[in-house]
Amino acid sequence: MKTMKVPEATISRLTIYSRFLEQADAKGILTVSSTDIAKNVGVTPAQVRKDLAYFGEFGTRGIGYTVKDLLKHIRKILGLTKIWNVALIGAGNLGRALAHYKGFAKRGFEIKAIFDVDPSKIGSKIGNINVYSMDELNEKVKELDLRLGIIAVPAVAAQEAAWALVKAGIKGIINFAPRSIIVDENVILRRVDLAAELEVLTYNLQECKIDA
Amino acid sequence: MKTMKVPEATISRLTIYSRFLEQADAKGILTVSSTDIAKNVGVTPAQVRKDLAYFGEFGTRGIGYTVKDLLKHIRKILGLTKIWNVALIGAGNLGRALAHYKGFAKRGFEIKAIFDVDPSKIGSKIGNINVYSMDELNEKVKELDLRLGIIAVPAVAAQEAAWALVKAGIKGIINFAPRSIIVDENVILRRVDLAAELEVLTYNLQECKIDA
Repeated sequence: MKTMKVPEATISRLTIYSRFLEQADAKGILTVSSTDIAKNVGVTPAQVRKDLAYFGEFGTRGIGYTVKDLLKHIRKILGLTKIWNVALIGAGNLGRALAHYKGFAKRGFEIKAIFDVDPSKIGSKIGNINVYSMDELNEKVKELDLRLGIIAVPAVAAQEAAWALVKAGIKGIINFAPRSIIVDENVILRRVDLAAELEVLTYNLQECKIDA
Repeated sequence: MKTMKVPEATISRLTIYSRFLEQADAKGILTVSSTDIAKNVGVTPAQVRKDLAYFGEFGTRGIGYTVKDLLKHIRKILGLTKIWNVALIGAGNLGRALAHYKGFAKRGFEIKAIFDVDPSKIGSKIGNINVYSMDELNEKVKELDLRLGIIAVPAVAAQEAAWALVKAGIKGIINFAPRSIIVDENVILRRVDLAAELEVLTYNLQECKIDA
């Protein structure tokens, strides 16, 4: 792998390419061109080739990419060849929804423990997953080899949850709470803003009206 | 507004810029430079200027952008100067979480009605929002002026939910179900893949290990 800095947008697109390749593979398609990928995910063929070029030479001129090979490569690039154990903070509505979300396990992410401060939730289970007290976070991170943290608490509690994860040694955090938080420099933080997708939609709906 | 096609990535970044500008405005900051914006959202200053240039000339050389003005412009570009009424399909865990999610209303998206096929849920309320039968969708879309649809049903039910929304006249749909769906060409569809964010995280965590 080249040591060149890969843009985050490229990584995001790799996750999209991998979904298309999974679908193609499921249909028994053996090879795809950069144009096939591009058309299906809504970018240019040149962008597909540029994104993949960061990680080496995968395709064959005139033939394209072998679906299974390219999928394997992308999964390896994204670190998806192993299971990542996840600590979920928050057993409220959003936490429950995330605990039940089928899309995580399918991609190798397993929520192994849920943490909350509410005594009425601690000791219960969501699906098969135990809900623990926040006081047990440090211990469970080690015991269950938890590597990633998901914050699904109310906005006011998000920063505190983030520090608790950092103190417990978690190096990668996703924040679903609708508030910006900060973490130590050696921790990778991403924010999921559920409203942002709606905004892209309303922009496009307006555009349609202008065209009409 | 120019009629030039604006890349979707630009629109996504505008939503991120607007969040930074809101925070700056809340702190009483009057002007920001493209470098300020860039540093805070993790892109280059040139990218910020390029993104904004699609929509006209906003900044003043040597001074930068007036926070309140730029925020107003971006909100207008994104179609956020009015309230968008939303139909939420699915009153399960994810639907409940989305119904309670504070980030939507804050951005002008109001979930006005929830629809489900489960008789035990129909007629109940989530927060202040009524849960209706899917059979009532067409009628309620007109009555409540619902413009956007959110699909939060299990994967197997996602496509059916999408067609129901399309038939009811909804032109913008967000799919939270972990399955690809199709809609008519005149409908704008976006998919939120909650696992995709985790993949960008694991990619970066691997990178860190390489650096160490």
